[in-house]
Amino acid sequence: MVRITILYYSNFRGQTEKLALAIQRGAQRVPGTDVQLLRVEDAESHWQRLHDSDAIVFGSPTYIGSVAARFKQFIELLSGDVWLKRMWVNKVAAGFTVSAGRSGDKLNCLQQMVIFAAQMGMIWVPVRLLGGNYSSQGSEDDLNRMAGYIGVMAQANIDEPAEIAPPPSDIRTAEIHGEHVAEVTRALVAGRRALAAEAAPAT
Amino acid sequence: MVRITILYYSNFRGQTEKLALAIQRGAQRVPGTDVQLLRVEDAESHWQRLHDSDAIVFGSPTYIGSVAARFKQFIELLSGDVWLKRMWVNKVAAGFTVSAGRSGDKLNCLQQMVIFAAQMGMIWVPVRLLGGNYSSQGSEDDLNRMAGYIGVMAQANIDEPAEIAPPPSDIRTAEIHGEHVAEVTRALVAGRRALAAEAAPAT
Amino acid sequence: MVRITILYYSNFRGQTEKLALAIQRGAQRVPGTDVQLLRVEDAESHWQRLHDSDAIVFGSPTYIGSVAARFKQFIELLSGDVWLKRMWVNKVAAGFTVSAGRSGDKLNCLQQMVIFAAQMGMIWVPVRLLGGNYSSQGSEDDLNRMAGYIGVMAQANIDEPAEIAPPPSDIRTAEIHGEHVAEVTRALVAGRRALAAEAAPAT
Amino acid sequence: MVRITILYYSNFRGQTEKLALAIQRGAQRVPGTDVQLLRVEDAESHWQRLHDSDAIVFGSPTYIGSVAARFKQFIELLSGDVWLKRMWVNKVAAGFTVSAGRSGDKLNCLQQMVIFAAQMGMIWVPVRLLGGNYSSQGSEDDLNRMAGYIGVMAQANIDEPAEIAPPPSDIRTAEIHGEHVAEVTRALVAGRRALAAEAAPAT
Repeated sequence: MVRITILYYSNFRGQTEKLALAIQRGAQRVPGTDVQLLRVEDAESHWQRLHDSDAIVFGSPTYIGSVAARFKQFIELLSGDVWLKRMWVNKVAAGFTVSAGRSGDKLNCLQQMVIFAAQMGMIWVPVRLLGGNYSSQGSEDDLNRMAGYIGVMAQANIDEPAEIAPPPSDIRTAEIHGEHVAEVTRALVAGRRALAAEAAPAT
Repeated sequence: MVRITILYYSNFRGQTEKLALAIQRGAQRVPGTDVQLLRVEDAESHWQRLHDSDAIVFGSPTYIGSVAARFKQFIELLSGDVWLKRMWVNKVAAGFTVSAGRSGDKLNCLQQMVIFAAQMGMIWVPVRLLGGNYSSQGSEDDLNRMAGYIGVMAQANIDEPAEIAPPPSDIRTAEIHGEHVAEVTRALVAGRRALAAEAAPAT
Repeated sequence: MVRITILYYSNFRGQTEKLALAIQRGAQRVPGTDVQLLRVEDAESHWQRLHDSDAIVFGSPTYIGSVAARFKQFIELLSGDVWLKRMWVNKVAAGFTVSAGRSGDKLNCLQQMVIFAAQMGMIWVPVRLLGGNYSSQGSEDDLNRMAGYIGVMAQANIDEPAEIAPPPSDIRTAEIHGEHVAEVTRALVAGRRALAAEAAPAT
Repeated sequence: MVRITILYYSNFRGQTEKLALAIQRGAQRVPGTDVQLLRVEDAESHWQRLHDSDAIVFGSPTYIGSVAARFKQFIELLSGDVWLKRMWVNKVAAGFTVSAGRSGDKLNCLQQMVIFAAQMGMIWVPVRLLGGNYSSQGSEDDLNRMAGYIGVMAQANIDEPAEIAPPPSDIRTAEIHGEHVAEVTRALVAGRRALAAEAAPAT
């Protein structure tokens, strides 16, 4: 069994949560995967789930160019044992973000996630899709229409509810990313098990 | 007289050059401004122009997430006297970039420009416009449709010639940025002159 | 009169505050400069001071690779009128940070500051000093011993009080940066005044 | 057999090459690992080796805040089939850099590597060591003395030959990183093989 936790901050508008659900649906397509959602506000009551996870996918809106303050509060909790005792080394990490602007410094938000994940020793899985909507044949319906690579870059119009924003192309992109992260994690977990079995003395 | 140089790399497709020309047009709207274009390939024969400039605006396509190698070659020439003797300290700097993807890691290209400019002690002037196209009322015709802040983020479809890509909204955004950079530079130059006059002994 | 505000977050150990005081001392060396310190916790009761400032210098420890969550909380307050009505366009901005590691992703913290400042349209002033301690003749006593360029990178041993960490070289570096930021701001303010006087009809 | 290629640019001083050799020694400690060095200047004659590699470790000095222009030239070759046909998706990637300054914007160089690797769909393995030299008990002899997390941050005095700079602590850090990257790659390769065996129809 592979355990994946999607740890996210979503404000009342629910757009980041909609993406978190899409990541979850995608990840669940991979056999033998247990995928749970966890809001950063609830993280402190679920440390064990996080410690037991093989992969943690981070999600936050991009607010003025970086992760939400509420999400950063959570990150700072890692500076104790998780960081010092290297508790999360070799876990898989990945990320997704959303904001109203097309580019709007989303990249910096994802880079911030890569950096704190690296400080924990986590292995980063990027989006495997090419960027879309880059020619006269492209459109906003393309997968990965924002050309995000480090993580999923979604875009949600500021005056639209989560029911329609981010649009279906971003949701499908998140699903594919969720599935991809789960596949990489599954291979890594299977590999560690296989190597451990080889190393164990025959009985 | 305020001297501004637009230093850029543009491949055969000419999209970055089209933006450089827009920056120039915008800057020329400011009275008393001498604005010249300079290709990085020609920079080594025009060091004096660069040393004499009050502002240098850097332009490069974003290739796989950072400035073109040819542009980077130029940057590395700065590691001699320009860097060691702090020759460019307090010059104004600004930047623009273009790529086919919407976001496509353009931000990292602009951040790279901020960093080498900072190593030279240059003062960075960002885009003054709000990002556009962020609501259901927005469109690709909005100014700053990509929501670039550190510098101009333009987007050009990969199968279109420079005549139509980047589109008019990006060109107008570049013009406004050129004008803005020229205004800030003009104020800084006027201020230094005024302070020098005050400091000089009366005769 | 030039108004500069140093807006910072400092935890109980007081290392960031020590740097803030050094920035202030340096800035005060420039004639006609009013320099005040403001903790982010107090910022909401001092909006007018911030709006009236010609320059704002941002300071935060680097926690797990980015600005403190408490500082980010403040940044998010800017997403209302300050951002939408472009209230801070053309103010001068600069930054400083401290952490226990030598490099320790301090750069990402400063880049985050550049980005939110750029979103507000603020003009970024980097450190004017060359990096130090880069040869066999160098030492930890060198100015700019960490080679920070976008802003001041200080380093404080985790087991030492603010009385001795960050060390004198970092404190002097912060003073020089404060003076530099004040000089650039003074020139910009003088220039705007001179241009306004020129533009006014003679009476 | 697990194939790892260390792809690097090193100038005549040879400091990056010394780190490349350290990464190789570390990786070779892992059983069943074939580790080869490849200079970017020679990459075009060894495409097949790169395509066949399970992991590629990138190395470049940090020149004025980003990878060497010569290294960037190589990156731009990837924009054809490697990028478009997603040829390197799921390969493991990692990085190392060296410069004379302590911090000196090395982070930006490593971030640039993360970004182009992500554009290729490569999985990024960070340094697993805690940063060193952060307390009064620390010293320049500590492992990971620069506190690099995304990749190895080495420091070489500008007036010293590669025989003594970067110093032994950086070399040991690079060895440990090479070993770590090889272990993660080995697990991933073993896992894919195990899953493929499970999926194959019994005969």
